Amino acid sequence: MSMVTGLKKLKNGIMRTYIDCMPCFIRQALEAVRHTTDDAAVHEAVVRRVMELAGKMDMGQSPPLIGQQIHRWVRDFSGQPDPYRKVKQRFNELALALYPELRERVNCADDPLETAVRLAIAANIIDFGVFGSMEPAKLHQTIDECLSANFDVAALEEFRQAVQLAERILYLADNAGEIVFDRLLIEQLPAEKVRVAVKGSPIINDATMTDADAVGLPSLVEVIDNGSDVPGTLLKSCSEHFRYIFENADLIIAKGQGNYETLSDADKPIYFLLQVKCPVIADHLERDIGQMMFHKSDVLTDKQFSVTENL
Amino acid sequence: MSMVTGLKKLKNGIMRTYIDCMPCFIRQALEAVRHTTDDAAVHEAVVRRVMELAGKMDMGQSPPLIGQQIHRWVRDFSGQPDPYRKVKQRFNELALALYPELRERVNCADDPLETAVRLAIAANIIDFGVFGSMEPAKLHQTIDECLSANFDVAALEEFRQAVQLAERILYLADNAGEIVFDRLLIEQLPAEKVRVAVKGSPIINDATMTDADAVGLPSLVEVIDNGSDVPGTLLKSCSEHFRYIFENADLIIAKGQGNYETLSDADKPIYFLLQVKCPVIADHLERDIGQMMFHKSDVLTDKQFSVTENL
Repeated sequence: MSMVTGLKKLKNGIMRTYIDCMPCFIRQALEAVRHTTDDAAVHEAVVRRVMELAGKMDMGQSPPLIGQQIHRWVRDFSGQPDPYRKVKQRFNELALALYPELRERVNCADDPLETAVRLAIAANIIDFGVFGSMEPAKLHQTIDECLSANFDVAALEEFRQAVQLAERILYLADNAGEIVFDRLLIEQLPAEKVRVAVKGSPIINDATMTDADAVGLPSLVEVIDNGSDVPGTLLKSCSEHFRYIFENADLIIAKGQGNYETLSDADKPIYFLLQVKCPVIADHLERDIGQMMFHKSDVLTDKQFSVTENL
Repeated sequence: MSMVTGLKKLKNGIMRTYIDCMPCFIRQALEAVRHTTDDAAVHEAVVRRVMELAGKMDMGQSPPLIGQQIHRWVRDFSGQPDPYRKVKQRFNELALALYPELRERVNCADDPLETAVRLAIAANIIDFGVFGSMEPAKLHQTIDECLSANFDVAALEEFRQAVQLAERILYLADNAGEIVFDRLLIEQLPAEKVRVAVKGSPIINDATMTDADAVGLPSLVEVIDNGSDVPGTLLKSCSEHFRYIFENADLIIAKGQGNYETLSDADKPIYFLLQVKCPVIADHLERDIGQMMFHKSDVLTDKQFSVTENL
């Protein structure tokens, strides 16, 4: 039996929040406030208040929108506009230390695009919240597993073709640290066609322009911010400029759960690259927790079906 | 850095609740109400209400005491006095199906007592909430791992001696299903000295007299109930009869986290057999999550030190 009963999408195309998400919101708020102070009384006050707030929230909203509200409140309460700044910096540095070796691996691979896609998903699998205390041997093992794990090769071929045909590719980044691995994939795409979007302002450990700068992305491709502090891509909270670029992209690469939760039913050609991290998403995608996902949006799936039918 | 900051014991000897416990309480309440109804609106109502209640609770209480209050409320709200009845029954049946094979394994072992102790801890490691969907091969693998994992052999020898010297042994059971594995260990103890205690009334998946009967314990040893619905052993909530037996026992074997949380500083000779399941307990015991624990109470540890000093 599914762990999550009654899973349904919202009519406006985004995932609603499930009651299963509540413990995670509370844990995340605690994690965030711990980055701002060691004072246990403050931790307790924040968790108590977040439970009170979360208990009254409209669950018709998508999880990232609830996350936005909770983390805005934590930032206000703590007076720290970017609780994860040091964490993000550390993860960028850790990932940058691996970059030369991984780039060599991509360039020497039989299929550099496939290797780069796998590493970009691997980076979403490696939980950078755990990474700091992860042994180097264990980290390399995780990367090796992702490089050899089962993978949707047919989707990769379609993706390769879509990249060639596309004129305007939009790459939606997810977290700091992970963005170094995104760079490896971005280097395999035609630079002149690619724009990368990061968050408009700090939210959890999501990459902002500071992180894009730190890992040298702007020297390769155009980087924009989406004007929003939702941990995903909720178009109505994004800037007009971002929305214009989103609407005019003919291929979108979206990293991580937050982008999936906010764009899963968007009427656009999107490849979602993510790790399945929780039972709600696992149910939605009919996959297991921990699985690598190279998932196409409905628009792309429908196109594939019609091709098959015409054969 | 420790995940749990400011970890301290209460002056009266039991562990206090940490803010990290809150997400778990909410998840447990959701799990409990899901066993009573498929109605998602009821699940949501319960979680919202539990967040409100938990947000106001006195965290100076031990986690099992907060668990007692939350699960009492869930039982009242759902009108079901034993939400886990079917689950407990299923896990007893699953474990009983393994019993003949495991008993053979104990009896054929070089050291039956060690094998039985390992299996009793293994049963606390095997999460019976996951067991139902666990492949038989995977289950056997978990048992094999516990049989060969690192283990405190010195503590086992002391335990063997303590069993021989003891006149009144009290075995505090933990969960249904697991109680079948406890039976394997109890069979290695001198039956005339042993009393087994189960919970006085239903609380989560903890074993009650119904479960002791289902797995045939009363035919081997005296089984009593502790008169309480705390998921642990909080003496002030137990019956006078149980407290008398507890006070007069000269060796106590306590299974699982709940008993550790409520008895960690009790002034009694206790062997705690448990799996480390959460960061709060991991910090308290200075161990890793998932580790097998064969842990002595302070009374026993102090005795060991004085013996060593006298050598």
